[in-house]
Amino acid sequence: MKTQVAIIGGGPSGLLLSQLLGTRGIDSVVLERRTKAHVLSRIRAGVLERGLVALLEEAGCADRLHAEGMPHDGTLISYGDEIFRIDFAALTGTAVKVYGQTEVTRDLYAARERAGGQIVFSVEDVQIHGADTETPNVTYSTDDTQQRIDCDFIAGCDGFHGVSRRSIPPGARREFEKVYPFGWLGIMSETPPVNDELIYANSERGFALCSMRNDTLSRYYIQCALSDSPDDWTDAAFWDELKRRIPTAQADRLVTGPSIEKSIAPLRSFVTEPMRFGRLFLCGDAAHIVPPTGAKGLNLAASDVHYLYTALRRFYGTGSPDGLDGYSDRALARVWKAERFSWWFSSLLHRYPDQTAFDHRIQVAELEFLRSNAAAQQAMAENYVGLPY
Amino acid sequence: MKTQVAIIGGGPSGLLLSQLLGTRGIDSVVLERRTKAHVLSRIRAGVLERGLVALLEEAGCADRLHAEGMPHDGTLISYGDEIFRIDFAALTGTAVKVYGQTEVTRDLYAARERAGGQIVFSVEDVQIHGADTETPNVTYSTDDTQQRIDCDFIAGCDGFHGVSRRSIPPGARREFEKVYPFGWLGIMSETPPVNDELIYANSERGFALCSMRNDTLSRYYIQCALSDSPDDWTDAAFWDELKRRIPTAQADRLVTGPSIEKSIAPLRSFVTEPMRFGRLFLCGDAAHIVPPTGAKGLNLAASDVHYLYTALRRFYGTGSPDGLDGYSDRALARVWKAERFSWWFSSLLHRYPDQTAFDHRIQVAELEFLRSNAAAQQAMAENYVGLPY
Repeated sequence: MKTQVAIIGGGPSGLLLSQLLGTRGIDSVVLERRTKAHVLSRIRAGVLERGLVALLEEAGCADRLHAEGMPHDGTLISYGDEIFRIDFAALTGTAVKVYGQTEVTRDLYAARERAGGQIVFSVEDVQIHGADTETPNVTYSTDDTQQRIDCDFIAGCDGFHGVSRRSIPPGARREFEKVYPFGWLGIMSETPPVNDELIYANSERGFALCSMRNDTLSRYYIQCALSDSPDDWTDAAFWDELKRRIPTAQADRLVTGPSIEKSIAPLRSFVTEPMRFGRLFLCGDAAHIVPPTGAKGLNLAASDVHYLYTALRRFYGTGSPDGLDGYSDRALARVWKAERFSWWFSSLLHRYPDQTAFDHRIQVAELEFLRSNAAAQQAMAENYVGLPY
Repeated sequence: MKTQVAIIGGGPSGLLLSQLLGTRGIDSVVLERRTKAHVLSRIRAGVLERGLVALLEEAGCADRLHAEGMPHDGTLISYGDEIFRIDFAALTGTAVKVYGQTEVTRDLYAARERAGGQIVFSVEDVQIHGADTETPNVTYSTDDTQQRIDCDFIAGCDGFHGVSRRSIPPGARREFEKVYPFGWLGIMSETPPVNDELIYANSERGFALCSMRNDTLSRYYIQCALSDSPDDWTDAAFWDELKRRIPTAQADRLVTGPSIEKSIAPLRSFVTEPMRFGRLFLCGDAAHIVPPTGAKGLNLAASDVHYLYTALRRFYGTGSPDGLDGYSDRALARVWKAERFSWWFSSLLHRYPDQTAFDHRIQVAELEFLRSNAAAQQAMAENYVGLPY
């Protein structure tokens, strides 16, 4: 098989890249290790920056997002019983959209199918060959038969555990990592959200987040020990703990109900540099991970896709490799800004095991500075709605 | 002896408070453990916020400051060979004044002498009695003779190691502390400053600061190990190390010369709460310490003095204790903001022994965000020139 761009990974980054390239007549094949049903069963974040929304519009996949997505003009931040709002719309003239990553993926699959795009599911033993040559190829197996795709370029969109990053020789990359000493216990419940905007809560007992998918589907998280298992937490215990971590007024009106999903996610910051090796380009979680605080993961994958799509368009349009040569530096400049924001916002809101009374007072001082200072709110809002590409 | 306000400590806070009270006809006595010559031999920071300048004007002690102090409209921040400027004047409409703390103290002594203010030097064995009664007093010895001052109020302006804070029963106060794992090696030299504004430098080899007292007197610092002694550092070694930590362009034009002072200071963040015990009120270093990064120490003492002076004026003018009752909360709200800023600015610029490659990249990302984002610069500038009282 031959294509122009072999895309490893059929999650939102790979699909979005394939769809965008398709709008410009650039041919691609997407390889996905799982089934479509499995990919669509993964529950991920659901706060979309304006940049991602614009890309989905360009890809022709934004109709349902605009119909069903909920624009959020601001967010609430609480500490103890104090609560204040950051007004994104007033500060930046823009908003974010609440729309589940699963729905984005579903819309992208539908678009690829309409366009006759090639997606191969359930591929095994994916291997990248000759990434540092002019003629790379990707091999994989389906039903125990080995297949091969010859291509001009390879896009590694296969996440943190994928083969793409590991295909770059260790001597040709440098990794940066921080593992946080806690996790997030999250539940989904068919209850109306406690508030129509997100609440990020710093409490003596640890972080909590009140989020949602829509008017009747809530998503809540509480910081938990990494040694905890979802089975340790009954629904009742979860709700009790959540109520203790948000202001009384919000706790009093929280509607509880059975969880329809319950899981624990670790928190990690990770970046690999560079994001390119020859004709292999990494996008999204294959190159970097952010803690979920601030919902930058999918959005950061989208900006990588934007830079790579722009570079490939330029290459196929003019023959110039400049965009491709500049991809890694351009993507990483934005990646580190988002890493910094996610790290800062996580540091501001969580309890750390080695946190001293001084450290805690500094958190409160930072929250009070953010509450009272227009410039601090402005910087926060610009990061939250997404720095420009 | 009787007075209205007994002031323990004849450094700049105690003198400023005494002088301000004097302008309103409120009587005070200042007790100082050292001689005047000793107090004036102490070298301290020299960046004055607008708030302190306004207080010195109100105290009638700002003539020489205005004649000799150097207004600084901005500061430079470097990392590696990169350098950028924060323009305080453009961002906040105000500037800071570079004028040595020693000179402030000298001016305040002169003003107290002109006004016939009472300052007792070389006092020993200062003790505070009855701070939680209506009739407190302070005892001390001079020339082995015990003395006693009966007073309405006591102002504890005697620094971190003074008797005032320790006179509050441990059960009635809570302390917050962070000790930084490095020190600052500072030298003074009779050379023209390398730059007409300060340069705060983050380098792979550790922090450096290029400061000055005037056009012919430079003050430079480099981050050093706490185990270092000033004797470990020849002048030549100091200059060599400083040059390695600032951008090449600045290093190339650095004028070196013999040091006329060389010392190592540890870095500490410290706050005691509350800042009041009955009729005893803590001001400045007696209640809180900041690391010197950002030069908040003297300025924070000044805002305490402002709050206490205002409260005492109100009490003696109207009999209302409201200002005094609110003193601790009001002062601490600003103290914690300055503690946060000093901690943040220190964290941004120093090398930490346990710093990972990820942590270092986050520092660089934060520096680049500060370099490129107007709101981040605004927040920094507002803190640097001093948050409003």
